[in-house]
Amino acid sequence: MNPTLEIFSQGEEIVTGQTVDTNAAWLAQEAIQCGFTVTRHTAVGDKLADLIFLLKEIAERADCCLCTGGLGPTSDDLTAEAVSTAFNRPLEFDPIAFEQIKDFFVRRNRVMPEVNRKQALLPQTAIRIDNSWGTAPGFAIQHQRCWFIFLPGVPSEMKALFSESVKPNLLTRFTLRAPHLVSLKTLGLGESAIQELIKDISIPTEVQLGFRAGTDDVQTKLLFPFHYPKTALNSLVTEFSLCLGDYVFAIDGLDETTGDLAFEVDKLMTAKHTTLALIETASHGLLAAKCVGYDWLIKASYEKSIALSTQNLNIEELISTAKNLALTTHQDSGANATLIQLYTGDPEALIDKNKSIQVLSVLLVNKEFYQTTHSIVGPLTRKQNQAALLSLDLLRRYCQGKLL
Amino acid sequence: MNPTLEIFSQGEEIVTGQTVDTNAAWLAQEAIQCGFTVTRHTAVGDKLADLIFLLKEIAERADCCLCTGGLGPTSDDLTAEAVSTAFNRPLEFDPIAFEQIKDFFVRRNRVMPEVNRKQALLPQTAIRIDNSWGTAPGFAIQHQRCWFIFLPGVPSEMKALFSESVKPNLLTRFTLRAPHLVSLKTLGLGESAIQELIKDISIPTEVQLGFRAGTDDVQTKLLFPFHYPKTALNSLVTEFSLCLGDYVFAIDGLDETTGDLAFEVDKLMTAKHTTLALIETASHGLLAAKCVGYDWLIKASYEKSIALSTQNLNIEELISTAKNLALTTHQDSGANATLIQLYTGDPEALIDKNKSIQVLSVLLVNKEFYQTTHSIVGPLTRKQNQAALLSLDLLRRYCQGKLL
Repeated sequence: MNPTLEIFSQGEEIVTGQTVDTNAAWLAQEAIQCGFTVTRHTAVGDKLADLIFLLKEIAERADCCLCTGGLGPTSDDLTAEAVSTAFNRPLEFDPIAFEQIKDFFVRRNRVMPEVNRKQALLPQTAIRIDNSWGTAPGFAIQHQRCWFIFLPGVPSEMKALFSESVKPNLLTRFTLRAPHLVSLKTLGLGESAIQELIKDISIPTEVQLGFRAGTDDVQTKLLFPFHYPKTALNSLVTEFSLCLGDYVFAIDGLDETTGDLAFEVDKLMTAKHTTLALIETASHGLLAAKCVGYDWLIKASYEKSIALSTQNLNIEELISTAKNLALTTHQDSGANATLIQLYTGDPEALIDKNKSIQVLSVLLVNKEFYQTTHSIVGPLTRKQNQAALLSLDLLRRYCQGKLL
Repeated sequence: MNPTLEIFSQGEEIVTGQTVDTNAAWLAQEAIQCGFTVTRHTAVGDKLADLIFLLKEIAERADCCLCTGGLGPTSDDLTAEAVSTAFNRPLEFDPIAFEQIKDFFVRRNRVMPEVNRKQALLPQTAIRIDNSWGTAPGFAIQHQRCWFIFLPGVPSEMKALFSESVKPNLLTRFTLRAPHLVSLKTLGLGESAIQELIKDISIPTEVQLGFRAGTDDVQTKLLFPFHYPKTALNSLVTEFSLCLGDYVFAIDGLDETTGDLAFEVDKLMTAKHTTLALIETASHGLLAAKCVGYDWLIKASYEKSIALSTQNLNIEELISTAKNLALTTHQDSGANATLIQLYTGDPEALIDKNKSIQVLSVLLVNKEFYQTTHSIVGPLTRKQNQAALLSLDLLRRYCQGKLL
């Protein structure tokens, strides 16, 4: 039997629905990948009596509990106080935590407000979890059956703390038989198209197949039990990979570290010593924004006049416009590759979620042109994001020699 | 006292984190707008014993409970069975529900699978909630203190059923007094700095103060009870607004429709008939990306060579570089305003989360320069996002005449 784990979210913004509790889902997935059985999620608001009651309840019921929220400096941040009362451990001033909090403000050239002092109060016997991403340290404490871990509610801080400190500790503290998750990340195929492509693969009953359609990819997930033989795992993954073909841009859970599409393109562009100049229209700056921190992007621009001038062109005209733009941009930029993204559609097509646009991406490298076209429908921000991803994907396919 | 309401989500996909529970947040917001006090969200998987235990618990604790999921035709859909056992009401075949289910398939020219018959079994005394969007009817039932409403987990079906049948019924069944939420959205102040600024305001005990720190703003939230006088509400909001000063970029919950910072800047730029050309470095395309769909952005670009050339400048040099760039860009662009965003910091400063960068935004309009500088620290994507927001905020302040 795996140890059981509950997720406990605190905050009025969660319980009133102002914020969708994405932390709970993220932590649940992480916990399952560690080898826990997740049994329950609970969210309550900033009410001391509710918090105390729930903490006591969970202490009797679960082996581990991941709690988020309520660690801030303000009067509605009640977690430490609730833990102190529920588990009968007086709050104690932690001088190291206090130094870290002061330091957070010093590094930002700001004076620490007096209210932040409260964040250095931790329940007796609690183990502090250092937080270099924000002011609030997390903490962990055992009560009765349950090992409680309290993390900040800000998703970026919570994720960083969990990955860097909490997870390694859980893996040594509990006897876990983690299942092995392999995810094939694709761009350009819907969930049902994927189902169609893989329908002839016979999947052993102990392997769990799942899908996750996100804004940036669709993941086909294979969850293998702890003792599943490595060679059988590899051969099943290969079978999936062959069925999904060039749509797969990364496979998570094998040996290599993978990331999102921009991360994969960065690896490829860096390896190929290729630099890029870019004009984007439909993605409106988002392609460049996804490449922040990557050295090979030399120049990127959006011009409204270009976007307007191509709205009514047919595909042939669009391609020739893009090629001409690529040639002139290439001369000026000093980059060895040039990517031009244009689109057609009526004037309302970008904004109207029921209308589609045709997005063309043209890549010029070593005097050769490569191109893809896609039809994109949906709300404005979806069109923008898909356009950015599909143009990036042309770079990936070029680097991987899949356009020859 | 408002009646209390809990949200109860059923399904392995929720508890394992494969699906983010957006239903819970949506229902919570609806319930609060109706005038309920939402006290708790709970999610459990498809385990009969857990379901029964929770239903009994909630029946003693809440006045109303909105439940989603577990109404489908398959063996892991256990809601009706759990209700039947927990509340001791045998399942009964509902011929009208059965006709509706059969009809669903007839309308789609499909044969009803035998498993779907199960969906016509409802606990004794339950009131059926007709579902013309899918196969599963919902149902409602009173047990002890609590009025339970069971809805399908598919978001579109759940929302349609709630809006068309459940909500009108709740409004007559309960005596509800909807509260009034006002949120002051700010950029550039942390939660604790806000607390300092508002510490002298005396807040009536019946008004609930809360905060929400997101990646794009910090919101100061005031929740007023149903009968709170409109003039007193306005005067308290004004008091907050004066204390927070120019940091407030929008106030939600008064008469005007508000959005994020880019949305507010769009309103202002459109009203002022101002068009913009833009060079961004630290935000790396993200400023342009946030303005997708807005007509006044004429041209935006990122250039690595500019970012590299300013890394080692002091603030005076940075300002004079930005002004020169603004002048040349202004001549070429045809826009009547030009925004230049530059930053300094050592070569690793953008990427290293512990190092800070100094971001300068310079705006040139009608031969006048306006500028702001900010120090930004944290992970790369936080720096990128903050730089985009702070440069946008210069536009807002200019449009509102707050830079004179």
